[in-house]
Amino acid sequence: MNPDIRRERENATFSTELLTNILDGDQEKTRRRREIVSLVCSDPDFEHEDLNFLSRSERYEAAVKKSAQMILKMREYGVSDPEEIYCYKSSVHRGRSEPLDLHLGMFLPTLLNQATPEQQERFLMPAWNLEIIGTYAQTEIGHGTHLRGLETTATYDPATQEFVLNSPTVTSIKWWPGGLGKTANHAVVLAQLHTQGKCRGLHAFIVPIRSTSSHKPLPGVEVGDIGPKFGFDEVDNGYLKFANVRVPRGNMLMKYAQVEPDGTYQKAPSDKLTYGTMVFIRSMIVGDSARALSKASTIAIRYSAVRHQSELRPGEAEPQILDYQTQQQKLFPLLATAYAFQFVGQYMTQTYHRITGDINQGDYTELPELHALAAGLKAFTTWAANAGIEECRMACGGHGYSRCSSLPDIYVNFTPSCTYEGENTVMMLQTARYLVKSYRQARDGQQLRGVVSYLNEADRRLRTQPVSAAPQLDADDLPGLVEAYKLRAASLVALAAKNLQAQLQKGKRQEDAWNSTAVDLVRASDAHCHYVVVKLFSSKLEEVQDSEVHSVLATLALLYALHGISQRSGDFLQAGLLSVSQLPRVSQKLKELLARVRPNAVALVDAFDYRDEMLNSVLGRYDGNVYENMFEWARKSPLNRTEVHESYYKYLKPLQAKL
Amino acid sequence: MNPDIRRERENATFSTELLTNILDGDQEKTRRRREIVSLVCSDPDFEHEDLNFLSRSERYEAAVKKSAQMILKMREYGVSDPEEIYCYKSSVHRGRSEPLDLHLGMFLPTLLNQATPEQQERFLMPAWNLEIIGTYAQTEIGHGTHLRGLETTATYDPATQEFVLNSPTVTSIKWWPGGLGKTANHAVVLAQLHTQGKCRGLHAFIVPIRSTSSHKPLPGVEVGDIGPKFGFDEVDNGYLKFANVRVPRGNMLMKYAQVEPDGTYQKAPSDKLTYGTMVFIRSMIVGDSARALSKASTIAIRYSAVRHQSELRPGEAEPQILDYQTQQQKLFPLLATAYAFQFVGQYMTQTYHRITGDINQGDYTELPELHALAAGLKAFTTWAANAGIEECRMACGGHGYSRCSSLPDIYVNFTPSCTYEGENTVMMLQTARYLVKSYRQARDGQQLRGVVSYLNEADRRLRTQPVSAAPQLDADDLPGLVEAYKLRAASLVALAAKNLQAQLQKGKRQEDAWNSTAVDLVRASDAHCHYVVVKLFSSKLEEVQDSEVHSVLATLALLYALHGISQRSGDFLQAGLLSVSQLPRVSQKLKELLARVRPNAVALVDAFDYRDEMLNSVLGRYDGNVYENMFEWARKSPLNRTEVHESYYKYLKPLQAKL
Repeated sequence: MNPDIRRERENATFSTELLTNILDGDQEKTRRRREIVSLVCSDPDFEHEDLNFLSRSERYEAAVKKSAQMILKMREYGVSDPEEIYCYKSSVHRGRSEPLDLHLGMFLPTLLNQATPEQQERFLMPAWNLEIIGTYAQTEIGHGTHLRGLETTATYDPATQEFVLNSPTVTSIKWWPGGLGKTANHAVVLAQLHTQGKCRGLHAFIVPIRSTSSHKPLPGVEVGDIGPKFGFDEVDNGYLKFANVRVPRGNMLMKYAQVEPDGTYQKAPSDKLTYGTMVFIRSMIVGDSARALSKASTIAIRYSAVRHQSELRPGEAEPQILDYQTQQQKLFPLLATAYAFQFVGQYMTQTYHRITGDINQGDYTELPELHALAAGLKAFTTWAANAGIEECRMACGGHGYSRCSSLPDIYVNFTPSCTYEGENTVMMLQTARYLVKSYRQARDGQQLRGVVSYLNEADRRLRTQPVSAAPQLDADDLPGLVEAYKLRAASLVALAAKNLQAQLQKGKRQEDAWNSTAVDLVRASDAHCHYVVVKLFSSKLEEVQDSEVHSVLATLALLYALHGISQRSGDFLQAGLLSVSQLPRVSQKLKELLARVRPNAVALVDAFDYRDEMLNSVLGRYDGNVYENMFEWARKSPLNRTEVHESYYKYLKPLQAKL
Repeated sequence: MNPDIRRERENATFSTELLTNILDGDQEKTRRRREIVSLVCSDPDFEHEDLNFLSRSERYEAAVKKSAQMILKMREYGVSDPEEIYCYKSSVHRGRSEPLDLHLGMFLPTLLNQATPEQQERFLMPAWNLEIIGTYAQTEIGHGTHLRGLETTATYDPATQEFVLNSPTVTSIKWWPGGLGKTANHAVVLAQLHTQGKCRGLHAFIVPIRSTSSHKPLPGVEVGDIGPKFGFDEVDNGYLKFANVRVPRGNMLMKYAQVEPDGTYQKAPSDKLTYGTMVFIRSMIVGDSARALSKASTIAIRYSAVRHQSELRPGEAEPQILDYQTQQQKLFPLLATAYAFQFVGQYMTQTYHRITGDINQGDYTELPELHALAAGLKAFTTWAANAGIEECRMACGGHGYSRCSSLPDIYVNFTPSCTYEGENTVMMLQTARYLVKSYRQARDGQQLRGVVSYLNEADRRLRTQPVSAAPQLDADDLPGLVEAYKLRAASLVALAAKNLQAQLQKGKRQEDAWNSTAVDLVRASDAHCHYVVVKLFSSKLEEVQDSEVHSVLATLALLYALHGISQRSGDFLQAGLLSVSQLPRVSQKLKELLARVRPNAVALVDAFDYRDEMLNSVLGRYDGNVYENMFEWARKSPLNRTEVHESYYKYLKPLQAKL
């Protein structure tokens, strides 16, 4: 092991193992996760060349091969618990998306949730046995987050008792579904249902798209891959165009809404039924943000511990770059953010499971709040992780730009989460809608509960407290900082609501007023989410028994909170929560916290417990032996397979003769 | 043409042609640029398949082919003026880097500047005729920006009158030089010169690395490609390892320093001689930032004009997404930034040329200031453009993630500029060093000149002006805002200098004190650069004659300045340049400016005048016909060349049989 990184580990003040258990949930969960990861990593059937050295077609092929193996092996080993499936799957694919993702994660669950018993009978076993490989075809070339705008039509023909699917415009071509391009032979297609001369809105249809024997596209179906993307090289995101494709009446998923043989339409009893899945997926994305950022921080911090550069003191050895304050300033707030998001992710999963119980009892009381929270936190965490991964990459200098660092891969595979499952700005505005509504309810005397209860006093507080009455914010007092975040959120929600009101009073229509205030509304949602994250991080500390682990996490929580205040100091000053004279103290305290995190930085990323195989990063190796392995990696890369590249003979040699 | 985008152009309030001339310099320059771009775009020898559909090896080969053609054609057409060469070259390679970049941009100029007449005789014509293809091998696996740390050795052996080159450690392997991996047969190698038992520091040597007849590596030379990167797929960045490679004494570049036959060392008369090139390259990078961001804004704004989504008013048609305030808030400040950086780039080029005249006369007076400015602005503009390109991509939703948008390519090919030619944080600290030095000079009574002259009063002003005396900053008054930026910079430079002083007074060593204040120092540099950008944008307005163009540029300048204030409001509040009660006015004004830019947004990006061939973006097409062309592009992509991918037969079909 590299002596620098060994010394870092020796100097840590806490047990990484205890912290790993906290991140996993408990000791047993850590054990089981490691067991599964081990099972995969030691399995020669999952070995293949570094994906960075393969063409896109080869990468897709490697992924199909692994997915096929994975299905067989999970059956063989009896891996069936959803959490364990997730763990096994992400070990196999190293956290990347894969061609069967939508089959497993959307097609099968949709059948389970929206198909009638008869339909389940017909489709479920074949799908389980991969005779039917499905995808979920929702977004179109012209519409993403705004579902009502989708244009694909399914028109019922009572004469033959069939639905006729069409893509009436270029913009109606289905676009982006994973696994659609080459892999799937069926799709759940979201289409506007037309029957008895009326449009009945979006419904889901099971549509065969490729022959189950030859795998060739069926008549009327034009289907293919949408071409190379920033990342997701293993996934065949596809397009799908229908020209009078007929499916039997029984292929509309009819558990809720129905079309009778004569074309009579029966609508679904409630539209909240698909609500839960959306909330669930967005909650899961919060966890994805945490994982992506924790991987990136692991790589950047380990590398910064073994990289020596420049000189601090003339004549002395070059310091580890982790000793530079500017490097700490880049990486440690991101490390703190990764921890914060891990805990927020845990909270979201727990809350979802808790509320699911209520929902199954028909109690939807808490759903709107969870829905608003999931939307906002999805946006808040993905944006922060997205920018943070790139900061980590750039903090590794030139070598971060090499594919051997894995940082480019982490970025390109994570960044779509800012867009999919609800475009982030749209998500922030959804949260804002809930906040403004809550604010108005509170103003009108209603007593709010849950996370927005702070709005009960927002209006009164803002009217009574002059700016000069800024409390002496204490940079060491985490509960006090949580309170400051809360009041900042209250102040910005109130401000957005008032600006909105002012637009309405000018006679603007509701929608125009909303659009003219959108910037303020997003800002309010952002402050709300920021408050929730700080609060959850702070609450998590209360659960931590071990005093050494508690101490290091408390430092991170304080760093996270103060860093946010220094980045948005204008907000805190504007809300009267901070005075100008306190700013130097905030800056000073931040620098102290960087120094305090420094000795534990490597141990803190070790606690994320990513095996080298999962990181796949030369810079982030556990043993710190970066340079020799970088050289090895380069030597194996495709352009070095021949001593002289053929372009020399084709273009350079002839040119030399000519000149 | 798409009717939305036609309407946008019809509604513009100014002549794009006039603005294009301003961006190019004058009407004649616009004409000549278009002529050259046309020459390249209509030349069938430069046609090839979309690079996104090629493997890395094919991309490298396509680039070599184009570079070879380019050399021939530039001779044929007599393109020899440096600006015209630049224009021709970037038209051929669409602004991308290419395998001969370092031959043309570093190897040849180094020969011209540092070789003796005898050496020029020997190397220049063969290099001009590409018998010698060179690269510039400076950075090593273990050292980048910190040049003194380089470890490659060149030891003089008087017995044979040769230098013996060695890579004594893994970290000393040359790493990253473009064209080194496969293309070059010679390298200018930077190595620590040892002669007569002493190390004499870094010197440059011409080292043959591959046979000029077979192109195979020469004995003792291990050379290859460093493997795939985030971008730069056309460039063979390489590694180079020496084991006792001998070159004749005459291969050390000896125009300045010399080694005599007996090994006696004569040092160079001045170390400022290589200073100029560095400043020049960093100044050029400011222009690169402007171009990259203007391309990205062009794509995002044109696409936002043709993309319709969601509903503002129930029952009405879906609006162009450019009508959403949140979309304007994302894109218009970036558009303003692209303009600001264009003008800063022009200024840097002009200043460099002006000062070069002085330098050639032996007058180095202005060089330190230009050096500090180039370092800081290189960092400031590349960071802003880097983040801005990604904002543009994400503002295009899912389709921005497709390679057909070209936004991923712009990003991955631009982002290394944050690292190369001086890592950005190191650059900011270099600028800070100059600022602190200037501040101390001013405090000690020296009268500063040039751009830092504002520091003459920084100290006095901060001591005399209490925070409560905040002037009533006027959101419409651009000169007033420039003044505010100036005072903010002064305040942050003073703050950093004082914090540094406080550390020294605690008894810390100079270097440790510097490191403990690094975060403040970077912040001060950032504020300084921000001030310079705002000031230069404002000054540029004075040159603009046409009142309509003036009006639209003035709006952009105001937007740029106010957006910066709102983003860093804490700084302005802290410096007493703004009061809390003014913040709502700043927000309100910003929203008004977004609305004012809106009708001219498409015309403003049209004025950047990128031909479709140069943008290579389906989303950014001039005619706005996005969707049909996206579909066409996808259909042509590699995975669609066969109806059924071979992995189906290899893995999926057998699996279906097993389950």
